[in-house]
Amino acid sequence: MVSGPGNALDVGEEMYRWARDLFPVHRSLTGPGVRQTLEYLARLLPGLETRAVASGSQAFDWTVPDEWTLRDAYIADADGNRLVDVRANTLHVVGYSIPVDGWFERAELDPHLHSLPDQPDAIPYITSYYRRYWGFCLSQRQRDALPAGPFRVVIDADLRPGVLNYGELILPGRTEQEVLLSTYVCHPSMANNELSGPVVTTALARWLAGRDRRYRYRILFLPETIGAIVYLSRHLEAMRANTVAGFVVTCIGDDRAYSYLPSRQGDSLADRAARHVLGHHAPDYRAYRFLDRGSDERQYNAPGIDLPVCSVMRSKYLSYPEYHTSLDDLSLISPAGLAGGYEALRLCLEAIERNLVPEVTVLGEPQLGKRGLYPSLSTRATFAQVATMKNLIAYADGRHDLLTIAEIIGVPVWALYELVDTLAGHGLLRLAERVA
Amino acid sequence: MVSGPGNALDVGEEMYRWARDLFPVHRSLTGPGVRQTLEYLARLLPGLETRAVASGSQAFDWTVPDEWTLRDAYIADADGNRLVDVRANTLHVVGYSIPVDGWFERAELDPHLHSLPDQPDAIPYITSYYRRYWGFCLSQRQRDALPAGPFRVVIDADLRPGVLNYGELILPGRTEQEVLLSTYVCHPSMANNELSGPVVTTALARWLAGRDRRYRYRILFLPETIGAIVYLSRHLEAMRANTVAGFVVTCIGDDRAYSYLPSRQGDSLADRAARHVLGHHAPDYRAYRFLDRGSDERQYNAPGIDLPVCSVMRSKYLSYPEYHTSLDDLSLISPAGLAGGYEALRLCLEAIERNLVPEVTVLGEPQLGKRGLYPSLSTRATFAQVATMKNLIAYADGRHDLLTIAEIIGVPVWALYELVDTLAGHGLLRLAERVA
Amino acid sequence: MVSGPGNALDVGEEMYRWARDLFPVHRSLTGPGVRQTLEYLARLLPGLETRAVASGSQAFDWTVPDEWTLRDAYIADADGNRLVDVRANTLHVVGYSIPVDGWFERAELDPHLHSLPDQPDAIPYITSYYRRYWGFCLSQRQRDALPAGPFRVVIDADLRPGVLNYGELILPGRTEQEVLLSTYVCHPSMANNELSGPVVTTALARWLAGRDRRYRYRILFLPETIGAIVYLSRHLEAMRANTVAGFVVTCIGDDRAYSYLPSRQGDSLADRAARHVLGHHAPDYRAYRFLDRGSDERQYNAPGIDLPVCSVMRSKYLSYPEYHTSLDDLSLISPAGLAGGYEALRLCLEAIERNLVPEVTVLGEPQLGKRGLYPSLSTRATFAQVATMKNLIAYADGRHDLLTIAEIIGVPVWALYELVDTLAGHGLLRLAERVA
Repeated sequence: MVSGPGNALDVGEEMYRWARDLFPVHRSLTGPGVRQTLEYLARLLPGLETRAVASGSQAFDWTVPDEWTLRDAYIADADGNRLVDVRANTLHVVGYSIPVDGWFERAELDPHLHSLPDQPDAIPYITSYYRRYWGFCLSQRQRDALPAGPFRVVIDADLRPGVLNYGELILPGRTEQEVLLSTYVCHPSMANNELSGPVVTTALARWLAGRDRRYRYRILFLPETIGAIVYLSRHLEAMRANTVAGFVVTCIGDDRAYSYLPSRQGDSLADRAARHVLGHHAPDYRAYRFLDRGSDERQYNAPGIDLPVCSVMRSKYLSYPEYHTSLDDLSLISPAGLAGGYEALRLCLEAIERNLVPEVTVLGEPQLGKRGLYPSLSTRATFAQVATMKNLIAYADGRHDLLTIAEIIGVPVWALYELVDTLAGHGLLRLAERVA
Repeated sequence: MVSGPGNALDVGEEMYRWARDLFPVHRSLTGPGVRQTLEYLARLLPGLETRAVASGSQAFDWTVPDEWTLRDAYIADADGNRLVDVRANTLHVVGYSIPVDGWFERAELDPHLHSLPDQPDAIPYITSYYRRYWGFCLSQRQRDALPAGPFRVVIDADLRPGVLNYGELILPGRTEQEVLLSTYVCHPSMANNELSGPVVTTALARWLAGRDRRYRYRILFLPETIGAIVYLSRHLEAMRANTVAGFVVTCIGDDRAYSYLPSRQGDSLADRAARHVLGHHAPDYRAYRFLDRGSDERQYNAPGIDLPVCSVMRSKYLSYPEYHTSLDDLSLISPAGLAGGYEALRLCLEAIERNLVPEVTVLGEPQLGKRGLYPSLSTRATFAQVATMKNLIAYADGRHDLLTIAEIIGVPVWALYELVDTLAGHGLLRLAERVA
Repeated sequence: MVSGPGNALDVGEEMYRWARDLFPVHRSLTGPGVRQTLEYLARLLPGLETRAVASGSQAFDWTVPDEWTLRDAYIADADGNRLVDVRANTLHVVGYSIPVDGWFERAELDPHLHSLPDQPDAIPYITSYYRRYWGFCLSQRQRDALPAGPFRVVIDADLRPGVLNYGELILPGRTEQEVLLSTYVCHPSMANNELSGPVVTTALARWLAGRDRRYRYRILFLPETIGAIVYLSRHLEAMRANTVAGFVVTCIGDDRAYSYLPSRQGDSLADRAARHVLGHHAPDYRAYRFLDRGSDERQYNAPGIDLPVCSVMRSKYLSYPEYHTSLDDLSLISPAGLAGGYEALRLCLEAIERNLVPEVTVLGEPQLGKRGLYPSLSTRATFAQVATMKNLIAYADGRHDLLTIAEIIGVPVWALYELVDTLAGHGLLRLAERVA
């Protein structure tokens, strides 16, 4: 059941290919880029459904915005040479720019240009979803090299009522309780934030699809913020009733770090699994606070929503210099980086699936020797050999789940799976769904 | 509502003047000095009532002692020269000395003399309230310079049934719940311990009198120990039923340190406010244990009394070399020292008054942008700008009071007052009196 | 009531003599050595009963094994010279060896020989209780010096149905609640592990027998593991209902360290007493985890047994190089080592006996002065003198037991015994059996 490193690395190569395919697609909050992305993922994930919600729909405190369709965007000189061209990089146009077509002097254009003086080669990523505005993003070097003007400025776009799309995949389980995986599909050409999220989520969903599941899995590919709000506003009751754990999957493709951001409640099953897994899988991981949040865990953990959703990441958004710029490209992520993130989350999901409550069936220590589970010759060396098994039994009192026992003993929970199966097979453990 | 530093310093100058006026008054546990002090304070505090309890009255395990009236006290030589004279310093006579008038050889006098060899310029402060005794306190230098004798020793005093006085000011609030401020008025001419206590309490009472109050304030000026016991024995039921927080105000006039001494329960609203305020107002404050107590918090926190009373101080009694000597004079305290202590306690009281429980009124994050509360252009820089507001909202779940939220977020609670008002004004927060 | 160091050292000499007497006896899980040991102890402990349970009896998951009687065991050369001889050291034969009598080549003999290459002078201690086997233990030097062979090998032993013996001493108390002391008597000639256990337990039992007891004491001398399981299987209900604290007494005779191993629940009365006593008696003691357990606390703390049993030791089993070898001899323990361990456990038992819940009988601080409990002259020096008494009173609220109060105040609990008696004698404290 446990994938070895080789296996995970194969998955890493596969995820990297998906990210490469999806990189050029011009995603935004709404529009054809989101649909094109969901169609690609649906070919990998049978059962993934693309949903549509009309512009103007209410969702809690929010209204679904108009749909944005961009056909072209450029700044040209008097000779028609394109100086800034969205065909070169999808980041060049401010997301949700309103249409424009006209001639501008440099002084008129400047308030609509965005660049980063401290990162002169980076094109920043800027959006203006809820304020009517147009603008261009370009590197500081491009900006410094612009001629005197005037400039022809064209943004050929529609911003009009349409739909907001998201993808939903439900994998049924043996119980009504469920686990949430949520990732987002609204960022244009950037790799760690965000293509790593959808591709790792897709690989996890494929692993889940092929195994027996204790829990139902609700796997969402949404535009960030408004997508989560729309989804929650339509499924809150069921999600509140059933969700035992959830993860926002984002920023999970580079090689530089592992990161954990807790749920607001801080000690949910998801948090416990994440901390336990990272503590053994990547002991030097960075533990953030909920105050450092910045993605859809904001919605899932909001007061009145209160879902137990945390994040397991590689380099967290806002923590690395390439974040939200054109430098967050395919060179920033790698098959090994994606594979490490995938494996961390896969171990979390497995820990949650296998987190039963063992209870020993005999009083006093069981006699392991008569069952061939214990060396019959007592020497100093044999004390250590059976320590893990005896410790598992000592805490198998029906009051500790397996994650708690692994934490007490100080071993990775996956080191207990086979022991649990062996002892249960000998009738020495019974396994309850939860602490009585 | 928040006094700026300039304002507090004006209050500091005012408090220092009050202390200078009251310094020469010869206070003791009972007698004319206490009444003279209370009369002075009553001119500053309309509504301050002077109460009287007869000697011999029972109060819990104690009996109100006789009233002590001192007219004169001196040690003179054979020529009638006063060698030690209470008119020079009120500390020269042991408090509650019985009358004496006679001639003494040096060997007879010596057991009645108190000096401090290690602090040869200091007159110690000594009392003998419950054992009949007479004595004189003098500096070691004075003592060493005494002639051979014999000495004329006169203590012209009455120790006979009378009354014990204390001052009580009740400021009504919008609720029946109340906050206790307790200070003492039984020490003769010393400044940090004790005149700082009554003058800071007076300034706080004047600030409270001029504002709308959620809580009733019970503000007491008592002789230490017996005064608190007498008062508690007559108001225990009401105080136990209503007191949400209390502070003993003492040793709060010098510049050298801030100090905190917890209530016995340790985590009351008073303690939480004190630690929060000092953590931001004076981060290097000294945190004592309840074991280090030494003033009327002993009574308020006694078993069966159990009031949530802690102390916020500058240099704590017993911790500074001038304590309980003539060196604790007006040079030891300062307007700035008094102002800093006043401001710390004022911030505590304001934090307690404003410690409501906010609950966000919408599900999911509110859309701040449409209310003009959020920059509509999303850039890296704007993430930080609204962090405090979003963090406030994230924890406004009806289960955390404002002090707790401020602690979680890591900001002074006073940085949230305006945000709370703004968000409540937009209908985004409702404010409950306490956690449901 | 408190033994001074001199007294404890006298007890230490006495315990050492008992250990010396018992050292040569060839103990095993069953058989004449156990009975001989119990007979010796019964002469010191009136009321100690030797119990017998038949081989084949069921006890939880276990079956009482056959009784082992060893008459002789040796390896001889062709000339009849004994090369390895159990008469020289009881450790030379593997415990529970089956009979053997024959000639063996060296290659045939070698799999039955046990030595420690890293400790060439030590004879290891090996048993094979539940697998039919025979073997010899010898030092590596002996083994290296063995001639070429062939060898005459004789183990003249019976392994056949008989009885398992243990010793039980019940000392009645004023209540039905009880304290457990458990030690083991199944190891042959070794000193720290194990003769220190029975002799310290015997001395504690003699101290307990001579005093008024709040609790009943259940004092057990058992063969390790199977003895505890047999005993528990026959007394579980009563022990679960009544046991307030218990200690496994083992490895308590050397001078090198003090050690504490918690119960599984970790914060029982036994644990609290042990940590408090060691914190003052031996502040640099080693605190182990329950994971480091290795003796009968395994059974007493097993799920479904759940007795509050911890261990107070000197150098813990498995932690010292001589453990389970012939080097753990009478030179490893000492009268002072035994006395220190005895005193630690005696202080624990006294702390448990005296762990009442004091409650002050007056509101506010009692007036100590009128009872002669307080210096009537108030000076700076007198503040410190009565601090412990006042702190005891301040926490005597009927919600803290004496151990908790001592921990809060930071004094050894035995520093409070006389104060409690004095204050109770003045009617200022009432003492409850437990927190209401």
